[in-house]
Formats: sequence, C-alpha cells, structure tokens
Amino acid sequence: MATIKSTNYSIYIGEKSLPTLVKFLTKNSYTNYFIICDEHTFEKCLPTLLFNVPQLHEAEIIELESGEDKKTLETCLQVWGALTDAGADKKSLLINLGGGVISDLGGFVASTFKRGIHFINIPTTLLSMVDASVGGKTGVDFEGIKNHIGTTSQPKGVFVNPEFLKTLSERQIKNGFAEVIKIALIADKEFWKELKSVKEFYSEKIITKAIELKNTIVKKDLYENDLRKCLNFGHNIGHALESALIEQKKDILHGEAVAAGMLMEADIANTLKRINVKELKEILDYINFIYPKIKLSNSTKELLLKYILHDKKNEGDALCFSLPKNIGCYELYNGVKIELIKNALVNY
Amino acid sequence: MATIKSTNYSIYIGEKSLPTLVKFLTKNSYTNYFIICDEHTFEKCLPTLLFNVPQLHEAEIIELESGEDKKTLETCLQVWGALTDAGADKKSLLINLGGGVISDLGGFVASTFKRGIHFINIPTTLLSMVDASVGGKTGVDFEGIKNHIGTTSQPKGVFVNPEFLKTLSERQIKNGFAEVIKIALIADKEFWKELKSVKEFYSEKIITKAIELKNTIVKKDLYENDLRKCLNFGHNIGHALESALIEQKKDILHGEAVAAGMLMEADIANTLKRINVKELKEILDYINFIYPKIKLSNSTKELLLKYILHDKKNEGDALCFSLPKNIGCYELYNGVKIELIKNALVNY
Repeated sequence: MATIKSTNYSIYIGEKSLPTLVKFLTKNSYTNYFIICDEHTFEKCLPTLLFNVPQLHEAEIIELESGEDKKTLETCLQVWGALTDAGADKKSLLINLGGGVISDLGGFVASTFKRGIHFINIPTTLLSMVDASVGGKTGVDFEGIKNHIGTTSQPKGVFVNPEFLKTLSERQIKNGFAEVIKIALIADKEFWKELKSVKEFYSEKIITKAIELKNTIVKKDLYENDLRKCLNFGHNIGHALESALIEQKKDILHGEAVAAGMLMEADIANTLKRINVKELKEILDYINFIYPKIKLSNSTKELLLKYILHDKKNEGDALCFSLPKNIGCYELYNGVKIELIKNALVNY
Repeated sequence: MATIKSTNYSIYIGEKSLPTLVKFLTKNSYTNYFIICDEHTFEKCLPTLLFNVPQLHEAEIIELESGEDKKTLETCLQVWGALTDAGADKKSLLINLGGGVISDLGGFVASTFKRGIHFINIPTTLLSMVDASVGGKTGVDFEGIKNHIGTTSQPKGVFVNPEFLKTLSERQIKNGFAEVIKIALIADKEFWKELKSVKEFYSEKIITKAIELKNTIVKKDLYENDLRKCLNFGHNIGHALESALIEQKKDILHGEAVAAGMLMEADIANTLKRINVKELKEILDYINFIYPKIKLSNSTKELLLKYILHDKKNEGDALCFSLPKNIGCYELYNGVKIELIKNALVNY
C-alpha cells in the first residue's frame, strides 16, 4: 500500500486502504459515524466497505440521489437535517463514499456542521481518486455556478481502494483519466512516457503517482493564490466547453471536455512556442487515440467563447492559462488572446 | 485610538476607527464593496459610515430584516444571491454593519462564498463590540439550534466606533455589559475593581479592556478545544435559561439571562469553595444592582434543567462549568452535579 502525506492527513492507496481505515477508526474515538453515499455507491461499494470495516456496521447511512444537479444547498439541508435528527455532535465522523459530488458536498456539510466536524473521503471513481478527494476544495453549485458556495477544508484521511473502479464503465474511467494525463503533461515527463507505454488506464501505481503530483502542488498553495492554478491546464477551454454543451443539453463528461480542452490548449502552447511541433503531435496523437472527437457546432463555439469571456471579465483584462512548457513542466501564461483561442477552435 | 492585534488582523477602537477604515480600504485593492445591515443600522449607522468613508459611496447595500429569528440559511440564500447578482468576485469585500446577528451571518456568508472572500466587522451594539465581532465564530441557527451551521473564520479587521452606541437603549447597553462583567470576573481582578468604581457602562477604555481580555484567550485557542471554554462563565445556566424563556415566549435578552446565570454559577463557585462568601456577595450585589431579577416559575425551572441536561448528554457524563477561582481567575470544573444547579436555582 502506498501512503502519501498531505497537509495534516494521509492518503492511503491500495487493497490495504480499508484495513487501514479500521485502524484509523480505532485510533480516533468518534462518538458515531455517518456515511454519505448515492444509490450507486450504496449498491456497489457500501457492502464492501461494511464487510471490511466492522466498526461501521452501526453507522447511520445517508443516501442521496446521484448527479451533479443534486450538488446543491437543498441537498445540504437534507444532510444537515439528517445529522441533527440522528444526534450528531462535534465528535461525529462523516464518511464520504462516492465520486466528486459526494466528497465536495459532504466536505462542505462537515466543515460547516457545528462549525466543523471531521470527515474522510473514500473516493469510488477514478476522477475523484486522482482529483476531487485531494486538495480540500469543498462546495456546492449555486444558481448554476459550479462550486459557488464552499470552503477549503481538509479531510482527516483519504482511503483509495482501486477495487471500486471495477464497477465503473470505460467511459467513466476515461472521465477520470483525463486528469491523469493533465498532471503528467504539466508536472512529470517520465510519468507521461510511462502512461504512453502502458495499456491500462489505472493501476495502484498510476493512481499513486497522479495523487502524489497533485498533492505536491496543492500543499504549496492551499488556497489557490498562485501555483495551484497550474492544475487548470485544459480546463479554461475544457470548462467553457463543458458549460456550453451542458447548456445545449448535450451528453458530456468533465474528463471528455478537459481532453478536448487539452488538445486546444496544447495547440496554443505550440503557437506560443512553449512546446514544439513534435511534442504537440505526441499529445494530439495520444489524446485523440483515447477520446472520440467532440463535434463542435458553430453555436457551441459561440457559447464556449461567451463562457471564456465571462471568466475573463472576472479575472481582469488578460486570460491566464496554465500551459505545458516542454512536456512535464508548466507555465502560467497571463495574456492569451481571444484570437489564439478562436484559432485553436478551428484547428481542433 | 486603541489597536489590538489579533491572529491575522487588528481591532481598532475609538473615534479614529472609521478614518482607519479609509486607510484600510486604500491599502487593500478590493474590486467592490458590499455592506450588510438591518433596518436599524441602515437608518442609524449607515449614514455615519458613508459620511466618514467616502470609498463606500459606491457600495452595494444588502438590507436584511433584523432579529435572531432571521439568522437562518434562508437569509444566507438571500445574501449569496445578492452577491452573485451584483457580480461579487473573489476580491470583493463584505462589510458587516450591525450586531451579532449581522456579523455571525455575514461572516458565514463571506467565508463560504466562492470558498471564502474577505469580510470586516463594524459592530454597532455593545454586545457585538465586546463579544461577537471578535473570535471568528460565524454561523446561523438551524432547526432551532443556535449557531448550528457555521465556520470559524477571522475577519480582516474590526472597526469599533463607540459613537454608534448612543443610538441604543439602556436595556440594549446592559445586554452587552453582561459580557464585560463576565470577562472581568474570570480574567482580571483590577478590571473588576475598575468596573465597580465607575458609573458608566461603556467607554473607549472599558470596551478596549474587555476586547483585549477576550482576544488574549481566543488567540490561544482558536477552535475552542479547551481554554476558550472559560468564556462560558454564566453561560451554562444563562444559555439554558434563555432557551427556556424563549420557548415560553418571554421577553429576554442574552445579557439578562447571562447576568442571572452568573449569579447562580457564582453561587455554585462558592459552594465548591472557588470563591469565598465575601467575593460572592460582591458579585451578587453588583449584578443585582444593574439587572432586575428574572421571575422563575416552576415550569421555567423545569425547562431550564431540561436544556442543561440536553447539553450534558452531548458532552458526556459530567457537566463542565467555567467558574471564577477567586475573582479575576477561572477554573474549568468538570463535574458540576445537577443538585448543585437545583440548589443555585433555589438561592437565586
């Protein structure tokens, strides 16, 4: 089992992660346990968790409806209410069993219940293992804006059991894999080479490396003042694309939009001479091999630009992109012009 | 003007506090300002603030209905919505102009909007000057439980303008003065002597001393693990009494209940030989001179005990009281028996 030390807690990865949770619960004397899950993790992951962690047999289960559209304050009210009714106190532990929606929402609920109770994350998707469950960002959507209400609050532990990934579809796995590609491209050339050489999207080794790289960055910039922005590679365009397609009621996953975003932002990085043509081709070939091209209608492109410009308004005059500078390094480039983005949209 | 350094911010007290706010705003480049107030501070304090701080002429005013019963998540939704609609961003500043309800709620809203924006407190009641605006406790009531949802988040500055107190009734002043008495009794014998010798309930000097004493304690225990519990003197019984009377729809202010609570808990401190009879008499005489006796019916007493025992349930087996140990010092006494409380109720 791999153990990664974060700010004040550890991330345990591998089949021993659940036995480690048994020890964690024995060591910390919580008055009671609450598990948040959705209908999928209730069915597919909770039995494994309960089987491996007997202390949780008495836990109160709070089952939420799945879906990003349930990541709202209304759902928080439901969880705060359930905690209150069941007599949760300052020494209760909240356990987030699920993907990013569960850990974002559960983390927020815990960090605000009685001014903060302990919580741990047991991520069940590749996306939440390598991304959402590490870094301390919690929150819910509000008036259509993602993570608009939230806190920065660290869990007391993250227990990553890759076995849970066997219950996911390939599309869901690829959804998380985009973040693995991203972190390799901006932070570790060797890891990038390794990804290209292996046939699998995940293994304990890949997950550990991806978390390790993110954790190193996050630890240096907990509140996203600067450095942490490098994690946005592929996300400026990717996020705008995701918002545009969701507004058009198209079926799109976060990782798919980020994959497309990385293609376009790599194109921009090449135009700005941050990566050479050979590196650009390497990136395009790899990502295009894994992710199907997204068809971009003119109306989608227009919407995407509207979303990008909306971000711009909030950030001052220049668009700040995180771009690879040679594969394996990054640069925060403050001043990407809209023409460059339009050009990348044409090239895509 | 007195300046008290807290964790990462300062508390400015006196007529120069508003000019200091002008400098503070000049030094920090916020994108825009939002002022939360209620109908009272809108009428009585906002004009003074705007007159003294020209930068705030362009501020967005968010007026809330006054009252503890408005300290809810519904009101937060209103403020989060107003911030969003007016385009507040990560570099907006929220200004809480009011008593404890405004600073508790405003602090919570700010600490969770986009995962935290800056806020400052301009307390307008004696209670919020000496108590609520210092210490970083934010929150709202939920399902009838006080401050059930909240965070521990420090303001970026507290600007105390005692002039605002001239708009308050004597009853409201006494409401805050109970916390001044409390902090003297547990933390500073000289201050206690001074209070007894002066005729006034507030002055820049008294306010400064009270904040200084609280701030010293809070800084050592930001998250109320231990030391900070000493601030609860008068509040175990006082809080239960307040809840009981509110449930019975009686007209009671926090400070009035705390004054009664201090009388009874001083009685307990004497029984437990923490203060002698002379000291007890000093305390009783002083508080009884200022605060009218509250009539306690049998049903009120029963309710009070119910609330005390409810707290007990949440804290384990023993009731932990903060008691003066000689006037000017305190002791956290873990093991106050219910008989002692019943006895104090009889003596009251």
